[in-house]
Amino acid sequence: MKVIGIDLGGTNFAVGLVNETGEILDRIEGKTKVQEGPEAVAKRLAEAVVKVRGSADVSAVGVGSPGSVDHKRGVVKFSPNFPGWHDFPLADEIKKYTNLEVFVENDANAYALGENTFGVGKGFEHLVCLTLGTGIGGGVITHGVLLRGSTGIGAELGHMNVIPNGPKCGCGSNGCLEALASATAMKKFVLDGYERHTNSSLFRDKNPDQVTPKDIFEHARSGDQFALSIFNTVTEALAVAIGTLVNIFNPQLVILGGGIANAGDFLLNPVLERSKNYVLPTMLGTYQVKLSQLGKDAGILGAASIVIERKAKG
Amino acid sequence: MKVIGIDLGGTNFAVGLVNETGEILDRIEGKTKVQEGPEAVAKRLAEAVVKVRGSADVSAVGVGSPGSVDHKRGVVKFSPNFPGWHDFPLADEIKKYTNLEVFVENDANAYALGENTFGVGKGFEHLVCLTLGTGIGGGVITHGVLLRGSTGIGAELGHMNVIPNGPKCGCGSNGCLEALASATAMKKFVLDGYERHTNSSLFRDKNPDQVTPKDIFEHARSGDQFALSIFNTVTEALAVAIGTLVNIFNPQLVILGGGIANAGDFLLNPVLERSKNYVLPTMLGTYQVKLSQLGKDAGILGAASIVIERKAKG
Repeated sequence: MKVIGIDLGGTNFAVGLVNETGEILDRIEGKTKVQEGPEAVAKRLAEAVVKVRGSADVSAVGVGSPGSVDHKRGVVKFSPNFPGWHDFPLADEIKKYTNLEVFVENDANAYALGENTFGVGKGFEHLVCLTLGTGIGGGVITHGVLLRGSTGIGAELGHMNVIPNGPKCGCGSNGCLEALASATAMKKFVLDGYERHTNSSLFRDKNPDQVTPKDIFEHARSGDQFALSIFNTVTEALAVAIGTLVNIFNPQLVILGGGIANAGDFLLNPVLERSKNYVLPTMLGTYQVKLSQLGKDAGILGAASIVIERKAKG
Repeated sequence: MKVIGIDLGGTNFAVGLVNETGEILDRIEGKTKVQEGPEAVAKRLAEAVVKVRGSADVSAVGVGSPGSVDHKRGVVKFSPNFPGWHDFPLADEIKKYTNLEVFVENDANAYALGENTFGVGKGFEHLVCLTLGTGIGGGVITHGVLLRGSTGIGAELGHMNVIPNGPKCGCGSNGCLEALASATAMKKFVLDGYERHTNSSLFRDKNPDQVTPKDIFEHARSGDQFALSIFNTVTEALAVAIGTLVNIFNPQLVILGGGIANAGDFLLNPVLERSKNYVLPTMLGTYQVKLSQLGKDAGILGAASIVIERKAKG
């Protein structure tokens, strides 16, 4: 029996046919075209589902969607990236065209399920996931249960406070993890510090607004002081947040995913070392921090895992 | 059917006979006398159990113990307050004398169960408890499950990092909630700031080392600037921590207990207001912050609730 996973993003979507072992047998990618409205997007997704399904025996469809999701009803309540989506019955709309059962989950939660089903967190009962991208998403599995919270909007780990009165966050607060360690934050640090660091090697071939997180990691590795200062802010913020998360969840594993995690061990090692300054002595040795290995398949596999999680619960 | 709850502290203990509705029908209090060793303490507790039991029909005994507890085996692994207790089989020892089934749980976890069974958190599926005393303890119920973590030492909410590089904490880290908002922290702020605030009304009738958290709240209420500055540090730290906890757990309720919470609405109202600066806009209106109403019965009722929780799970 196979499942279909839909990775729904603000710009692109991907639909994949996935087997029990997490192989993606077929996939279709496309533009979401949010501006055409929710019904048109749902129809586009449904058409992709029908195509990747082909003649395969499919049990159900899982959708990882940004924003606030009513996972019981399969409704996207709202999403900052999807203007005009309010209480949109995404599951029902896709089912209408495909006649398949459809489950919807917040994309960061889907990510955690994917790591728990197919990734480095496979089979763990206590798992904390951080997706480091434009923003920072979070997913938590504790005692084998996906942490959704009382109204389904929990595990917002990107909005843990790391530095009260720290940099302004997109959410309106200050000093959230996302305001310190996301791609958006890193780019902002470059723009804010440019005038004081015009000699930085970051600006040898690029204008400040062209510098990417990848550039920052590369130049930090080469010893550029400005890049290093941003790198230190990012690793320290992640270490503080992970320290607190370990003290709260006493997890076996913390997984770092998303584009920023592509920096690899250069990011992972200092984050792991520094996190030890923020965990209780009794927590030392109880947790690991690892990089996701799912790469660009994380979205589809996470979405596919939603189906597996729901079916397991009957 | 009744249960017996044991509130085991580093200095005192209390044993109570509790009925289904949370009435304490009989109670015995005494000195723990830790220095006599774990066997002697267990025997003392067991004797108290036999006395409060009398001829009542008792299903089992629950013990809320400080430190790290193996709740499955009823073993106290170690406790900073109980030197010499290493992997001590407390449940078995008490059972030996009483022939009653005995369950042991970390005291902060027991506290959360007590609030969930008999207190203002009765029946809630998503509950965060902070006990504000000499230290700061934490207990979390999420999706109806007590958060113990992978090795049973989770929910250490007193060691969430609030201010990186903040005041030194007893755990070895810096800027933990406990280093900012516990009775110990408040007393330290008084001693550290005394010389710069000799005119403070706090020192009109008392030496710096005699000033209590209660004094600080009273003088803050009367407008003393030094007392107010400590009060603001405490409320702000609690607000930051609660903001992060709400963003993580999306709970229905946050409960403040322990001696510091006796400051009442004077503490509660600014904490609740300030917490709104640290929660996501979508979280506003989803949570309440309340003071515990269990008072000095919290320990016994928490311990009694352990039995109820375990029996409910079969």
